[in-house]
Amino acid sequence: MSDTSKTVTAAILVIGNEILSGRTKDANIQYLAAELGKLGVRVMECRVIPDIEATVVATVNELRAKFDYVFTTGGIGPTHDDITADCIAKAFGVGISEHPEAVARMTRHYGDPALFTPARRRMARVPHGGILVDNPVSVAPGFQMENVFTFAGIPAVAQGMFQAMKHRLVGGEPVLARTVRTNLPEGIIAEPLGALQTRYEDVEIGSYPAFRNGRPSVSLVLRGTDAARLATAAAELIVTIKEMNGEAEEFAT
Amino acid sequence: MSDTSKTVTAAILVIGNEILSGRTKDANIQYLAAELGKLGVRVMECRVIPDIEATVVATVNELRAKFDYVFTTGGIGPTHDDITADCIAKAFGVGISEHPEAVARMTRHYGDPALFTPARRRMARVPHGGILVDNPVSVAPGFQMENVFTFAGIPAVAQGMFQAMKHRLVGGEPVLARTVRTNLPEGIIAEPLGALQTRYEDVEIGSYPAFRNGRPSVSLVLRGTDAARLATAAAELIVTIKEMNGEAEEFAT
Repeated sequence: MSDTSKTVTAAILVIGNEILSGRTKDANIQYLAAELGKLGVRVMECRVIPDIEATVVATVNELRAKFDYVFTTGGIGPTHDDITADCIAKAFGVGISEHPEAVARMTRHYGDPALFTPARRRMARVPHGGILVDNPVSVAPGFQMENVFTFAGIPAVAQGMFQAMKHRLVGGEPVLARTVRTNLPEGIIAEPLGALQTRYEDVEIGSYPAFRNGRPSVSLVLRGTDAARLATAAAELIVTIKEMNGEAEEFAT
Repeated sequence: MSDTSKTVTAAILVIGNEILSGRTKDANIQYLAAELGKLGVRVMECRVIPDIEATVVATVNELRAKFDYVFTTGGIGPTHDDITADCIAKAFGVGISEHPEAVARMTRHYGDPALFTPARRRMARVPHGGILVDNPVSVAPGFQMENVFTFAGIPAVAQGMFQAMKHRLVGGEPVLARTVRTNLPEGIIAEPLGALQTRYEDVEIGSYPAFRNGRPSVSLVLRGTDAARLATAAAELIVTIKEMNGEAEEFAT
């Protein structure tokens, strides 16, 4: 579904000491941001915070008031450091207990009751009012509380949960992108690029330098919701680069 | 330098639409978090925000009041979308202009004055009162305003800048870590692990499941400032795992 009359915004909240210590590199922000973009949902902020109850509760409440959607990853496993579900319940001022459908799914999954340990039963706890988010990878579900979606942190599970619930999102106008890659350095292309930006106020023009095969290369990314405007801006940019004796290659992105 | 009497905190602020759109995967958070940890500086929060002036100014002011250090990456290049330096000046309520030493370095670097374009001269602008941060990769410097350090976004440059300025930081007690890896699933190890956490309140115990060579594996990470306590806790954990017929392997981290 899409609502083309407005910009739909989101925040991604990564909960976990392991990201803040540098032990683990976050892998969920990029995936979720790209997938949300396809649905016309613009990620306006990402935060990484520690497994500290007061911080999680306050941040969830700040973000859910500020953005149309909030996606949290991390902290819904079976161990003592998995406090996200309890924090979400606190943020919404509701209780938390075992969700019958979650218990049923996990009972089937583990088969032998001895394997459905008390620790694993903790993963069936959902804040009151929460709607389950299916987990196609390891069964224990995530959940939705109003505009807040809570996923596991393991990338394969977070991705599976997102795919399982994305039909619930109402996006805005999809943001389209065109990328023009050039060998001209930023310091040379900057002036005409700024002039182009001034002429195309409705197109967001970004400049991203990198090294490719040992040679400096700049990706100029044009983003916007009007395909025709993007095409015209990209064509103008390519002409400008060629007039400056630069190479220009266009990529659909 | 280190001040072992207190916890020294930091925030990392990643500025850039390209991370929020999912186009680019952030590579600076993990590097900075790990390097800061070695210096006894604990990263307590990371944020990714767009290139929007009001957002950058407000976020810088919020974070610099809340944490001992703030590190920003991104938005100090030569193009129109590079607004970070101006935003930092606004956040501190000061003006911004060309820094003579930055101009001198860049003049030497570019040699031919025609190559030191107006766009590149923008990179010599520093908020008033700012102290340069050397850029060993591409010359155009970062800068320090009080407890806020502003780096480029390109990972090689951000890393070079961090190494060039890290002697200015006063860290707290370094956080040490021990990792015990086991083949026991989280749902089985969770209970004794929680009991261990209760007995070792001064040790932060995290549990991180993953797949290794197609087999589920859990890394149990013990973090704290007291090496002896960490060693005892890790030894106890290994005994517990072996009593449960699990495999336990210890890694220095």
